[in-house]
Amino acid sequence: MENKFAELNEKYGEVAALGSAGAVLAWDQRVTMPPGGASARGKALAAIEETVHRKFTSPETGALITSLYDWAQAKGYDSFEASCLRAIKRDYDQAVRIPAALVAELSLAVSASFEAWTRARQASDFSIFSPHLEKMVELNLRKAEALGFERSPYDALLDIYEPGMTRVRLDPLFSELLSGLKPVTRAIGERACKVSNSRFKGDFEESAQLRLADELVKALGFDFKRGRQDLSAHPFTTGFSVNDVRITTRTHRDWLPACVYASIHECGHALYEQGAPEEFDFTPLAGAPSLGLHESQSRFWENIIGRGRPFAAWALPLYRKHFPGKFDSLSADDLYRAANCSEASLIRVEADEVTYNLHIMLRYGMETLLLDRKLKIKDAPELWNEKMKEYLGVTPSKDSEGILQDVHWSQGMFGYFPTYTLGNLISAQLFNSMKKDLGSIDTLVEKGDFTPILGWLRKKIHSQGRKYKPEELLEKATGERLSVRPFVEYIKAKYAELYGF
Amino acid sequence: MENKFAELNEKYGEVAALGSAGAVLAWDQRVTMPPGGASARGKALAAIEETVHRKFTSPETGALITSLYDWAQAKGYDSFEASCLRAIKRDYDQAVRIPAALVAELSLAVSASFEAWTRARQASDFSIFSPHLEKMVELNLRKAEALGFERSPYDALLDIYEPGMTRVRLDPLFSELLSGLKPVTRAIGERACKVSNSRFKGDFEESAQLRLADELVKALGFDFKRGRQDLSAHPFTTGFSVNDVRITTRTHRDWLPACVYASIHECGHALYEQGAPEEFDFTPLAGAPSLGLHESQSRFWENIIGRGRPFAAWALPLYRKHFPGKFDSLSADDLYRAANCSEASLIRVEADEVTYNLHIMLRYGMETLLLDRKLKIKDAPELWNEKMKEYLGVTPSKDSEGILQDVHWSQGMFGYFPTYTLGNLISAQLFNSMKKDLGSIDTLVEKGDFTPILGWLRKKIHSQGRKYKPEELLEKATGERLSVRPFVEYIKAKYAELYGF
Repeated sequence: MENKFAELNEKYGEVAALGSAGAVLAWDQRVTMPPGGASARGKALAAIEETVHRKFTSPETGALITSLYDWAQAKGYDSFEASCLRAIKRDYDQAVRIPAALVAELSLAVSASFEAWTRARQASDFSIFSPHLEKMVELNLRKAEALGFERSPYDALLDIYEPGMTRVRLDPLFSELLSGLKPVTRAIGERACKVSNSRFKGDFEESAQLRLADELVKALGFDFKRGRQDLSAHPFTTGFSVNDVRITTRTHRDWLPACVYASIHECGHALYEQGAPEEFDFTPLAGAPSLGLHESQSRFWENIIGRGRPFAAWALPLYRKHFPGKFDSLSADDLYRAANCSEASLIRVEADEVTYNLHIMLRYGMETLLLDRKLKIKDAPELWNEKMKEYLGVTPSKDSEGILQDVHWSQGMFGYFPTYTLGNLISAQLFNSMKKDLGSIDTLVEKGDFTPILGWLRKKIHSQGRKYKPEELLEKATGERLSVRPFVEYIKAKYAELYGF
Repeated sequence: MENKFAELNEKYGEVAALGSAGAVLAWDQRVTMPPGGASARGKALAAIEETVHRKFTSPETGALITSLYDWAQAKGYDSFEASCLRAIKRDYDQAVRIPAALVAELSLAVSASFEAWTRARQASDFSIFSPHLEKMVELNLRKAEALGFERSPYDALLDIYEPGMTRVRLDPLFSELLSGLKPVTRAIGERACKVSNSRFKGDFEESAQLRLADELVKALGFDFKRGRQDLSAHPFTTGFSVNDVRITTRTHRDWLPACVYASIHECGHALYEQGAPEEFDFTPLAGAPSLGLHESQSRFWENIIGRGRPFAAWALPLYRKHFPGKFDSLSADDLYRAANCSEASLIRVEADEVTYNLHIMLRYGMETLLLDRKLKIKDAPELWNEKMKEYLGVTPSKDSEGILQDVHWSQGMFGYFPTYTLGNLISAQLFNSMKKDLGSIDTLVEKGDFTPILGWLRKKIHSQGRKYKPEELLEKATGERLSVRPFVEYIKAKYAELYGF
């Protein structure tokens, strides 16, 4: 059996190595590729994906998994062997359930859909995108059927990104969150003048923004010997191994937080990737149990640490260093307040940590209706606008600020949005647990001593890779199941103090 | 048959797409990868190479080639089908002849050998490298046996890089070249004081060097929408498709030509790649018939154009623009002379266009002796030094300046060096032919009107891809077979005028 296990690992290692090659191509595509390269790059990526899929879903892989599964579980639930087999079995079952023809059809449809969405958004014309959205819903329903589900096709899709999560679990969490946040957004709305972010507006030289961003992520623990930071249109994180993890950021010349918080957010993802055990590289245990857990790391560093008062105190000298004169008259408290102006707005990616989750709930509601076939595509823009009014009190004046703003649906991704909010919830749970273990996090952050904080996350989360299911890992780390309370309490306490209610 | 041909092309297209993915990984490895990424990158590259080899050498590919070959040739020698089949048959035969076990052994041995060479060169200690050089000779002899040859195992290796070339052809060319160059190097040696390159020494801000390099290659015709220029330790060119071709350069703060001429050289390679027909992308006709032909393009632009007097006249304002004040007192003729100081030196990559070929002949002589087992590894450094004295009149004081200077043998590449000199010879033949067609090239270059020059190369060389054998293509372009005379005449005329002999 040991030999068979080695054989399976070798097979998987090759597949993972090819997968990492694909990730390099995708990074290059978004960061360094000249415009002319697009078409050939599409072919190269497709060839890699096809090879990965074919290699991974071979009957030999399936036979090895079947013959090894019980043997591995007998080694103990926590063992490397048992965890590997659980993870690979999950991936394999998912991969073989979706017919190759559907994979190919989806891939083609996504290309067309993304192209149409780009045009639709530019023209703010939903009719350009609507037939593609219809197609995406249809293909996702077929995908859900292929994957299988108990109650709702949406569950099958959600499970791809957040294993084990279902609507039955999610619905009550989201309504609890909604009722927890409503009084906060109402109170903030009544006191909008109390906090302003105008100190972050101005003219900030772009190379100085990048130098500041490099210094910030380095201080948080990002290892530039095992990674790099570049510019791209949409910030993202990717890893080719634990020793080559790359983040990107963006710069808005007139709005400094775009760069600073994109960098800290992506750094959070990257610290997770760089913190994985090297021996998990190219094994089924590389990566995170779910997107929600991954997002908990980016949100933790971006919001809980990066938008905290002690962080402002520590970071102010860096702002002053990279922008001489610009921050001289600011106190740490001014900086803290400027980073925490909450305001109902139309665009999700620009939303603050209070209102952000309302954007997610809107999308969750819409995509479950679409998948249930209870909402017609043609009625979707109107429902979007109604829900915006209901949740956030604002109404888009055009669809590019409404239903056309996000790329996800054009990419065929339904069930993805909730993971953003799950990340927020988990980050607050981790923060509470960390405080119990480490004492005052504020004192550490004020000194710029991020090592114990990162160390705690490394031990509790990063070092575990994909050994456990998402909620198992959360319970191991915090002793609690997924819960809304810590996040709502964190938000309430922070914003009551900031806005004085 | 049409269907079978389409099937073969599709198979080949996938292999080529995976190959281009490997090239992206290799580019990233040399240009952007953080140091930590090396080990995982090795695995990813190995996985791609293994997949490419296995896919390409499948019996199905072989059967398709066999069944299509005569059908394709009947379409006419120049037809797409016939040319494709000739090219793919050559690649396939070469690939299947080398046993997989030998490929794997070579790959492992190269890793160890490269690592040992790096240490040996640093320590200037040949004994660290010698067992690996022995291994490389042995493995290359086995490779040559597997590939097959008529007279000499060296021919089989040479043929990899320069199809159709043999020692029987090369020996007389090289001795003619040697006797042609000897009087020139002697005459230059006696008049060393006549030309100095001191005008290129100084303190040149590195970002200004890169801006100059970008402007130069753009003027020559490099398309930045379909390519990019970056920095790397050793300049190189790579292409992922005709629409994504990348060059790298280097900067020496105190020595401007290192950057300028690396950029022009690589630009020459890139113009070839960018000039291929788009429909050859991912087909067996993508690329050049031989390394010598590829090198003829880089040498043409670097030396014949870039080190010519009219180029100096055109480029001087650019030098002045990017280095204000530094070139004010220089005339175009001063710049021309500074770019053409010829001097016997120890290091091949720093050699000028006259002495460069002597370095190549030395290596050619050594590697044929090694492959004939007429030279013992332990005696190789001494022979190197003797030959340096004989050809160039200088003697290395240590092996890092002698036999350890080049990476090629550590990479298992024997038979590669001659292609550099073949490139020089071909570049002069093309230049002569171009003059007949276009009239005064000097007038064009002085005006910076490089379009007709590039257009001629596009038509005669770039647009042909791998349709023809190297010498066929040369004859089609110039009406002549490979010949030494044009190069020697070019060198004699240029340097007699420069040095006054």
